[in-house]
Amino acid sequence: MSDSLLAALSSLSIEPAARKVVSHTASDSQAAWSDALASVSAADKPQDYHLLKTLVFKPKTAKSETPLPVVVLTDDATQTNTSAIGAQLKLKDLRLAVPDLLKATLGATKDDVSPFNVTKENASKVRVLLDEDIVSSKVTYAVHALSASETVFMTGAGIQQYLESTQVQLDVVPFSSLKAPAPAAPAAKPEPKAKTVDAKIPEAELIGITVRKDLDFPEWYQQVLRKGDMLDYYDVSGCYILKPWSHFVWESIQRFFDGEIKKLGVQNCYFPMFVSSDVLEKEKDHIEGFAPEVAWVTRAGKSDLEKPVAIRPTSETVMYPYYARWIQSHRDLPLKLNQWNSVVRWEFKHPQPFLRTREFLWQEGHTAHLTQEEAAKEVLDILDLYRRVYNELLAIPVVPGIKSEKEKFAGGMYTTTVEGYVPTTGRGIQGGTSHCLGQNFSRMFDIAVQDPKATDETRGKPEGRLYVWQNSWGLSTRTIGVMVMVHGDDKGLVMPPRVASTQVVLVPCGLGVKVPQDVKDAVNDACKDTAAELNRHGIRAHADLRDNYNPGFKFNDWELRGVPVRLEIGPKDLANKVAISVRRDTGAKESLALDSITASIPKLLDTIHNDMYAKADAEFRDHRKVVTDWDMFTKTLNAKNHVIIPWCEEEACEDQIKDRSARTVSSEESQDERAPSMGAKSLCIPFDQGAYPAIDGRNCPQCGKPAKRWTMFGRSY
Amino acid sequence: MSDSLLAALSSLSIEPAARKVVSHTASDSQAAWSDALASVSAADKPQDYHLLKTLVFKPKTAKSETPLPVVVLTDDATQTNTSAIGAQLKLKDLRLAVPDLLKATLGATKDDVSPFNVTKENASKVRVLLDEDIVSSKVTYAVHALSASETVFMTGAGIQQYLESTQVQLDVVPFSSLKAPAPAAPAAKPEPKAKTVDAKIPEAELIGITVRKDLDFPEWYQQVLRKGDMLDYYDVSGCYILKPWSHFVWESIQRFFDGEIKKLGVQNCYFPMFVSSDVLEKEKDHIEGFAPEVAWVTRAGKSDLEKPVAIRPTSETVMYPYYARWIQSHRDLPLKLNQWNSVVRWEFKHPQPFLRTREFLWQEGHTAHLTQEEAAKEVLDILDLYRRVYNELLAIPVVPGIKSEKEKFAGGMYTTTVEGYVPTTGRGIQGGTSHCLGQNFSRMFDIAVQDPKATDETRGKPEGRLYVWQNSWGLSTRTIGVMVMVHGDDKGLVMPPRVASTQVVLVPCGLGVKVPQDVKDAVNDACKDTAAELNRHGIRAHADLRDNYNPGFKFNDWELRGVPVRLEIGPKDLANKVAISVRRDTGAKESLALDSITASIPKLLDTIHNDMYAKADAEFRDHRKVVTDWDMFTKTLNAKNHVIIPWCEEEACEDQIKDRSARTVSSEESQDERAPSMGAKSLCIPFDQGAYPAIDGRNCPQCGKPAKRWTMFGRSY
Repeated sequence: MSDSLLAALSSLSIEPAARKVVSHTASDSQAAWSDALASVSAADKPQDYHLLKTLVFKPKTAKSETPLPVVVLTDDATQTNTSAIGAQLKLKDLRLAVPDLLKATLGATKDDVSPFNVTKENASKVRVLLDEDIVSSKVTYAVHALSASETVFMTGAGIQQYLESTQVQLDVVPFSSLKAPAPAAPAAKPEPKAKTVDAKIPEAELIGITVRKDLDFPEWYQQVLRKGDMLDYYDVSGCYILKPWSHFVWESIQRFFDGEIKKLGVQNCYFPMFVSSDVLEKEKDHIEGFAPEVAWVTRAGKSDLEKPVAIRPTSETVMYPYYARWIQSHRDLPLKLNQWNSVVRWEFKHPQPFLRTREFLWQEGHTAHLTQEEAAKEVLDILDLYRRVYNELLAIPVVPGIKSEKEKFAGGMYTTTVEGYVPTTGRGIQGGTSHCLGQNFSRMFDIAVQDPKATDETRGKPEGRLYVWQNSWGLSTRTIGVMVMVHGDDKGLVMPPRVASTQVVLVPCGLGVKVPQDVKDAVNDACKDTAAELNRHGIRAHADLRDNYNPGFKFNDWELRGVPVRLEIGPKDLANKVAISVRRDTGAKESLALDSITASIPKLLDTIHNDMYAKADAEFRDHRKVVTDWDMFTKTLNAKNHVIIPWCEEEACEDQIKDRSARTVSSEESQDERAPSMGAKSLCIPFDQGAYPAIDGRNCPQCGKPAKRWTMFGRSY
Repeated sequence: MSDSLLAALSSLSIEPAARKVVSHTASDSQAAWSDALASVSAADKPQDYHLLKTLVFKPKTAKSETPLPVVVLTDDATQTNTSAIGAQLKLKDLRLAVPDLLKATLGATKDDVSPFNVTKENASKVRVLLDEDIVSSKVTYAVHALSASETVFMTGAGIQQYLESTQVQLDVVPFSSLKAPAPAAPAAKPEPKAKTVDAKIPEAELIGITVRKDLDFPEWYQQVLRKGDMLDYYDVSGCYILKPWSHFVWESIQRFFDGEIKKLGVQNCYFPMFVSSDVLEKEKDHIEGFAPEVAWVTRAGKSDLEKPVAIRPTSETVMYPYYARWIQSHRDLPLKLNQWNSVVRWEFKHPQPFLRTREFLWQEGHTAHLTQEEAAKEVLDILDLYRRVYNELLAIPVVPGIKSEKEKFAGGMYTTTVEGYVPTTGRGIQGGTSHCLGQNFSRMFDIAVQDPKATDETRGKPEGRLYVWQNSWGLSTRTIGVMVMVHGDDKGLVMPPRVASTQVVLVPCGLGVKVPQDVKDAVNDACKDTAAELNRHGIRAHADLRDNYNPGFKFNDWELRGVPVRLEIGPKDLANKVAISVRRDTGAKESLALDSITASIPKLLDTIHNDMYAKADAEFRDHRKVVTDWDMFTKTLNAKNHVIIPWCEEEACEDQIKDRSARTVSSEESQDERAPSMGAKSLCIPFDQGAYPAIDGRNCPQCGKPAKRWTMFGRSY
């Protein structure tokens, strides 16, 4: 491809900025592309360049007409306002083109689409809107060379020259002058903060999130994580760097959960990350679930290992041979161990930060008990701690319940779970699971004691032996992904106060050039002193005294990172001994007396936490719909709901539900490309059955058999 | 071997308990042998068996005589008191035979030696002492079948029958009746606790440490770790399980160190465990040091990876490409990140728990600074925290200093270190290192900013760029191994109070069968209530109310685990409202009023900490010897000293010192088999040069060149 492309450019006398087309890792987002280019040898690329952003929109078109997609080209950093573009081109309801349309019209995917997909041959099927700002600038742009793994560098003027050669319908308009029409009707909930953006911080466009959460959720998620400083991409695919901003969330969860399990008598330990294949494969059902994802170490230095060793995907089979050794008598019970570690599951599916990564951090608890009752109680005690992590730390509602037989942990007896919900996509997400393993693993690994209730007849004989009852339970850094997805907005992260590394940021304001130095100093000192005072009271506060940024830039910067409260202090505020607090979640402002700020801030942080929880809880409740008629099932699902049905609890029926709800999925859904036509699965059988009508006499809407319990179904991550 | 052995036994009509000789992993200790047998299929071994302990001692013999070694055979659980054995056989100064003697006399090693090494051919060269207790019991014994990887099962009577057939000089004596002579002269320091063992807890022999720390240090170390519940062996070689008892020590270190580095502005993060080979190999000097030990993942599930990925041996090259991206301006400095993780170094040398393991836990800090001064200050700040971990948590003295050029971190500018000392072996141990990397890595990874002091001429030009100054620093679970080696004694672990998972154990005493139930209840309640009261005051106390063990067993059990204080409460004590405290470190007893115990215990724990530190400090100081004459160098070293010389600091001289001190090592040293003839290396150049005479005008004792600084040399781990 690249040779013919160079030949074509050459024939047009377009000189690329670098001598050749460069190859790199294939990228599936602008962010990944940027990373891929960063790894390209400096000799092969210009010293400075920007990424070209290529978006393809489909206007609303009468069914009888063939849609004429619009290719929009601008600088990656320029915010593309679809309303403004629509107004400019006199097109209604622009939506990002679905993959099929992209393929059919331009022979491209969203990962490799570029101006070069517009050719003389297809020029009549599309139109192009080119940002004049990039044509008139001297900036060199990285442009995909007809492949997600190849890039050519050229100027905006060169891009224009190429497009003109194709004779496509081309509009060249300075995007800086594009005007949005009157604000669109608000979404379900009014968002007062939207005004703040437009009114106050035009700098947002330089560093802010460039796509709307509800329009391109996958891209929004990637941007919000990287621009919000939560993580960075890594050069081993499926692995990510947890930066301090997200690691602090994990540390907060660790501190809470570790303290609580210690109260339950759980102790921490550390088992090696390596497992021998013999041990790994001992429990067949269990390993079947993990085998395809196990990473194998086969070599050390230059020597091949005699026997390859696996990296643990979870530690049941790692730990239980030793439980068999350590547990010799009922007096050794209960044994309650936990470890904070990382595990590796080399998934080949599309990775997603926090939600599906090849290595992730978690805790895994593994306990052994004399009786089923004791094990069963602990399963619920732990699940309630998971609920509290979500509710009390992350301000996220979850539905606790039990998994269906199909969805339970491989090799276990039953699985309990807390299930979350991502409103933007309408998909469910498993929040944490606490399994009762029953006696399955203890039989397999021979973890047994003399039954203290053995009779004289059975004592000392096999019948007098009792296999221990086991549990295992785990919570991972997936929590952080759920938190970001639920609370984040178009301006970036919204951090729940209790896990925010910085809870309050102080920004000196109103210090223009005419303000005398002593006043400036006083305001800066007030910010610094207030931050220090808050720190002394256990509040994580930071004074942003950077002198090279104006307040607007700082506002935006901290909003991107989701700091719960901003305190602004200007000369007048200082004179009045107040600070102006601005809530990240609602944008609400309030004047707070400086002399009581160590009392008012903790209250405000609690209010924010409670409001964030209440908002998310209302959204989740609004999207849990009782359905008793199959006809309504998929329709309700497609409206981003979880569906609660009186269910027969049969596995065959669950399979059918999945098939039938997948087949009839609407094409609208394809906007979230990860779940284009996913069927619903059972998420959990909620413990709170009392919230629904009596089940007696009801039949399963799918198969007609008698229903057992109300069960929550949904599409899920 | 095994066939002829079976034939020989058969010809003697000795029937092994299991039908055949079983094969298993070769073992290098009784503990490892026990593990190896545990993995043998149940069909191939008796349901119950004990290990046979085979020790070979050499009596003190006049130089002109050939020594007649004594083979001692007993149950693995029976304590072998060399003094009592010597008294029985009228032999003086029994010492474990060195490998050469074992080989020469019996054709055996300590790992495979068994009664079968005694044959008609060599019977005249040895004598045997057999424990009559094992001959008269019905117990089946596991006996090495002339190989460390083969075992035969037979009774004590069968063993006797075999030995008689060889016509060796055989004494059969019940070890339970063996009497030690009057207590041996105390070692350097009196050990009052020794009496307690003999006088009070005969049960100790059942579960206690079976070798003396000063006689067989490697075996002592393994036993004390396993019987003290610190760790267990694992089926992947070189990997160990950290049980809660040792993990708590690590958590204590984490809590302290994490809190302190956060005060210095360091933030935690997490980088993936995988590294691509390109990145790993970027810094050549650095990777040369690690390449032979790098573990490679080449396969996932059933698929070979396109490009193998390494598991990090340390994270410099993992992290610094991202530092280059994140640090764009001097305002991004300092960047101070730390991670608590595990790293893998697939060493092929003999592994040793905590000291040399293929995976280990540590923290690694990586910071970047604008100026060398700032970096240099941090190097020392961190080193001082490492010193405090040793002094203030682990009660261990260390010598802070700087490494020689030869011993510094590969690729760094200079390395600072805290150096510890293991009195039993006289070897030094590196405690933790804090490196200044200078600008070497920043040049390699292009981590640079515009120099804020750039002039108008250099600004924006390459000359105006400033490569950042970097540090890295790490502390690992090796700390735990040092702690065990320094403080442990013949009864087991001695835990420093501040890192002991249980600081105080309460044991009800004097509750014989005649004591009325209400008194028993009252005593048990007093123990429970006192523990609860101590817990409320932040002291980690535990009441051992197990009703199936007598107090003596419990004393021994908790002494093995090294709990700093035991509180005994009997009916009389309760009547007097006191508890008797017994210190683990000295055995000293004291009566403590129950009503002020929450005040007296913290003081006692501090006293214990200070005394443990003072004892270890005195031992270390006694073994740091200033030497200015080369003739004295190796002699002083051989007396388990570190040697401090006025040194020229030249690398060639360091190599020569190592060679010359290795060649002349005394044969006595071979007792510690890990360092049979190791030469001395430079451990550090102590910061505290003022402790030694003025260096001016002195010459290096090895090469005669002018000395630069006083430098500490020693054999080391």
